[in-house]
Amino acid sequence: MKKVPEQQEFDITGIPAIADRATAVPDEQIPDAVIKRLPRYFRCLRELYNRDIMKISSAELSEITGLSAPQLRQDLKYFGGLGQRGYGYNVKKLYTCISEYLGVGKKYTAVIIGAGNLGKALSNSRLLEQRGVWIKGVFDISDKVIGKTVADNTVRHVKEVKEFCKNNRVDIAVLCIPANESTELCDIISGTGVRGVWNFSPCELDEKSVGVPVVNICAADSLMILMREMSEIKDKRQ
Amino acid sequence: MKKVPEQQEFDITGIPAIADRATAVPDEQIPDAVIKRLPRYFRCLRELYNRDIMKISSAELSEITGLSAPQLRQDLKYFGGLGQRGYGYNVKKLYTCISEYLGVGKKYTAVIIGAGNLGKALSNSRLLEQRGVWIKGVFDISDKVIGKTVADNTVRHVKEVKEFCKNNRVDIAVLCIPANESTELCDIISGTGVRGVWNFSPCELDEKSVGVPVVNICAADSLMILMREMSEIKDKRQ
Repeated sequence: MKKVPEQQEFDITGIPAIADRATAVPDEQIPDAVIKRLPRYFRCLRELYNRDIMKISSAELSEITGLSAPQLRQDLKYFGGLGQRGYGYNVKKLYTCISEYLGVGKKYTAVIIGAGNLGKALSNSRLLEQRGVWIKGVFDISDKVIGKTVADNTVRHVKEVKEFCKNNRVDIAVLCIPANESTELCDIISGTGVRGVWNFSPCELDEKSVGVPVVNICAADSLMILMREMSEIKDKRQ
Repeated sequence: MKKVPEQQEFDITGIPAIADRATAVPDEQIPDAVIKRLPRYFRCLRELYNRDIMKISSAELSEITGLSAPQLRQDLKYFGGLGQRGYGYNVKKLYTCISEYLGVGKKYTAVIIGAGNLGKALSNSRLLEQRGVWIKGVFDISDKVIGKTVADNTVRHVKEVKEFCKNNRVDIAVLCIPANESTELCDIISGTGVRGVWNFSPCELDEKSVGVPVVNICAADSLMILMREMSEIKDKRQ
């Protein structure tokens, strides 16, 4: 298991001075549709910041993000006072605010449940680590993988997951399991202190039934959407 | 490389009689929001069909899908004439219509570009095959994987991808590559006959710039959304 760093907040944004931060963290309720676009702003602003670009107009930001300038101005008004007519947006401040709002730079722990292809890929990728998430355990139900090592973690039997989450302050359960097992697993996880579910199983879960926030990613569904969109375009090769 | 089956349409729905199909394939333009929910209906209806449940009320379907009954009735009216007061929906007809509309049961070919953790996981998973997609080639830029075998495919260098797609009637390019390479790859793919891009790279692409339909799946973004939602819930353990 990887060593979890000391308890102080580590700085994934690369912006050292905490004092500089959060001049305009919004206190207004931000609509869900806007929140969904924030990671996109975050990525673009990080790129700009890393390239030492410290101010940007809404027209330029629109070009980079692919969102229209009016849309963008509307979205970013929740992080108000950062855009100035004739100057544009202060990249560092906007980046810092959005990072803070999204909780980037905070530290989380997770368990991966399901050590199949996807579970292994997620365990081995740097994605979780880059977002401040430490994988504390990997679980599966199959004797074929239990006891094997996946990304420095010995795969444990799923029946141990409840106790493990209780004892290890696990924040996030990452579900990489078949659809028919996901509801049952959510029951197992409830009451263990797990605060969020990142669900890759092909079965939607929601906060109402799980009791904690859930984000579903269903690759199979998105593939069907692509197929639908493709079928509207006339195949020019025919 | 796996053998691509004969040219006739194969039946992934398990419903043999083509003549029975498509009694109510919609000719109205269906809103995007409704289309996005269709895979969910598809999965639930498939489950019902496989369990030999041939009719279902909107209340029951609402329970299974997690969507409200009015929402569901509104969505399914595009597949009109299938719901009957006091009878409910004809599962087989509805399932068949939605399957057809989504293009399920059609046959596609794909290349996986990027043979890292995710590219390998997708190549090895049954997800693509289950949706009728045959992987015809896997590509990467790294000498570490070129020449190796991933899911029965010998990994080729990315510089061969353009010629390969032209010569092999490739429908879908699956991008599992870093963000900074994805735009360049879309340029390479354009004009090769590729009809859709399934983009797992952490950089949104859109149909306007790519020239063919694109569906983006950004795992990192969805993780940030989860973190944001978690930060709104007070950590009860503190």
